[in-house]
Amino acid sequence: LDEFELIRRFFDRQLVDESVVAGIGDDGAVFRARPSHELVTVMDTMVAGVHFPEFLDAGDIGYRAVAVNLSDIAAMAASPRWMTLALTLQHADGAWLEAFAEGLFTAAGEHDVALVGGDTTRGAETVVTVQITGEVKTGTATLRSGAKAGDAIYVSGTMGDAAAGLSVLQSGAPANEDIDYLVRRFRRPTARVGLAQAIATHATAAIDISDGLFADAEKLLHASGVSGSIEVSEVPISAPLRRTMANDDALGFALAGGDDYELCFTTSVNGDQFDEIAAGFDTTLTRIGTVAEGAGLSCTKDGVRINYTNAGYRHFGD
Amino acid sequence: LDEFELIRRFFDRQLVDESVVAGIGDDGAVFRARPSHELVTVMDTMVAGVHFPEFLDAGDIGYRAVAVNLSDIAAMAASPRWMTLALTLQHADGAWLEAFAEGLFTAAGEHDVALVGGDTTRGAETVVTVQITGEVKTGTATLRSGAKAGDAIYVSGTMGDAAAGLSVLQSGAPANEDIDYLVRRFRRPTARVGLAQAIATHATAAIDISDGLFADAEKLLHASGVSGSIEVSEVPISAPLRRTMANDDALGFALAGGDDYELCFTTSVNGDQFDEIAAGFDTTLTRIGTVAEGAGLSCTKDGVRINYTNAGYRHFGD
Repeated sequence: LDEFELIRRFFDRQLVDESVVAGIGDDGAVFRARPSHELVTVMDTMVAGVHFPEFLDAGDIGYRAVAVNLSDIAAMAASPRWMTLALTLQHADGAWLEAFAEGLFTAAGEHDVALVGGDTTRGAETVVTVQITGEVKTGTATLRSGAKAGDAIYVSGTMGDAAAGLSVLQSGAPANEDIDYLVRRFRRPTARVGLAQAIATHATAAIDISDGLFADAEKLLHASGVSGSIEVSEVPISAPLRRTMANDDALGFALAGGDDYELCFTTSVNGDQFDEIAAGFDTTLTRIGTVAEGAGLSCTKDGVRINYTNAGYRHFGD
Repeated sequence: LDEFELIRRFFDRQLVDESVVAGIGDDGAVFRARPSHELVTVMDTMVAGVHFPEFLDAGDIGYRAVAVNLSDIAAMAASPRWMTLALTLQHADGAWLEAFAEGLFTAAGEHDVALVGGDTTRGAETVVTVQITGEVKTGTATLRSGAKAGDAIYVSGTMGDAAAGLSVLQSGAPANEDIDYLVRRFRRPTARVGLAQAIATHATAAIDISDGLFADAEKLLHASGVSGSIEVSEVPISAPLRRTMANDDALGFALAGGDDYELCFTTSVNGDQFDEIAAGFDTTLTRIGTVAEGAGLSCTKDGVRINYTNAGYRHFGD
């Protein structure tokens, strides 16, 4: 099973995408973008033992590698279209590759993303880099930099589930329904692609939550040149997380835990219609704070300022 | 020096590219393609100790990571435009990163390619994945699949220099001018971007030579559903390679050595004008063989068929 057989067997699926002129099997992929659209490219790497535990199912590794990129595309309010995969492996294990490809194509298929190319190489550890290019109507991409003083800060879904799920997974705690829910949120994160497009005209800025709510909200505020505050009692925490962890631990995961891949965005409109929009995507949108002049992000609890700071996950940050 | 400081310090260079709406620092990069063009995306990974020796200068690693992708873009006759970088490192070494970025931006700058995004992660070994998206006028990408019986097979430049250079580099042989030339061909390969565009209207199929002339020519013929033969006495070998190696060794490197990043293409036109075109790009174009009906690639030496086969470099191929 050399690299070319491996690609043919696991990754070279027949495309039914008319935008793709040439896919896997040439020096490059050729595809056609729509007129009056801009292109959005995102790229995320996952390293075994760093971004996921070594024992994680190959299917989940494949799914997550795509989902985390879909989440970045969502944060720009773009439509994901074409994907490339750089896969570095220690050895070519057919069963592992089959499961990995299943997860990869499941996540891609949920959003009609075509795998059009990539590179498969041998290395000392598993490294998965996925790149997705999407489209957005010219001028409508949601950037991090548009938040204004007075805007409200919103998040989609619930916070901290994935990080708590990973923690429980690594602790080897016995499974129950709540734990299964949390672990699944880590294994198979839901990229908010449709939701992000539905709220795009209302959003002044957006970011996806991959390094932790506090850290990523701070990045959005910094990029916009504004400050903000989060009321921690408003941060949405799922029932399974509340039942599994003590209150303070649950809040800790909700503020600092990465891997949620929910959206954080700012808006200048009254969010009355947001409940209905969110319900259409089987999730919620919750106002958690406010943007102000200045710089930095602070937290309040029941209106009283509390000391909280967290830089989020940073490679080489130790 | 955490990942965000690292990106700011070494990779977030001010762009003067009007096609880029949002570059490094958002969830994704936003850019504008030209109307009436198709997009071409290529992606190549380099793993330390596999694609290059661990001791290779960081500047050369950066340069090669871009050049090998430019070469794939060239093989499609496209214009490279936007680049993303996935960089996995054991630790954040400022001097290494500075040299790496110098090499990367030198190669990118030679073709006005903008670094618009990427991901920097920690891992157990150095893994560099570069993705480049380019543009080509709709319908004009040169694929591997267009070769027809009767076409001539051409290559640009000379064959085997880079592989011989790497071999000499690893043997620790004392340097001389010829060896310096060969080693430089490995360290800083020349992607034939402009040349490929200049001959695109004459080429029926093209591939870049990364895994070895014989193996890559065979891939082109296979994709086109035809056979071919190479006259080995016509394969262009540089004077430095001839002076450094015995004839048979030089020919071995020329046929099987990877890393040349020259073009191999087929054409149905008389190549009288090719010398002048090639001279405009400081290189040569040499007819080395012929396409025929059937399947497979064979070699002749002075017109007599010889036994030669080489599958080229394959990950997991051992």
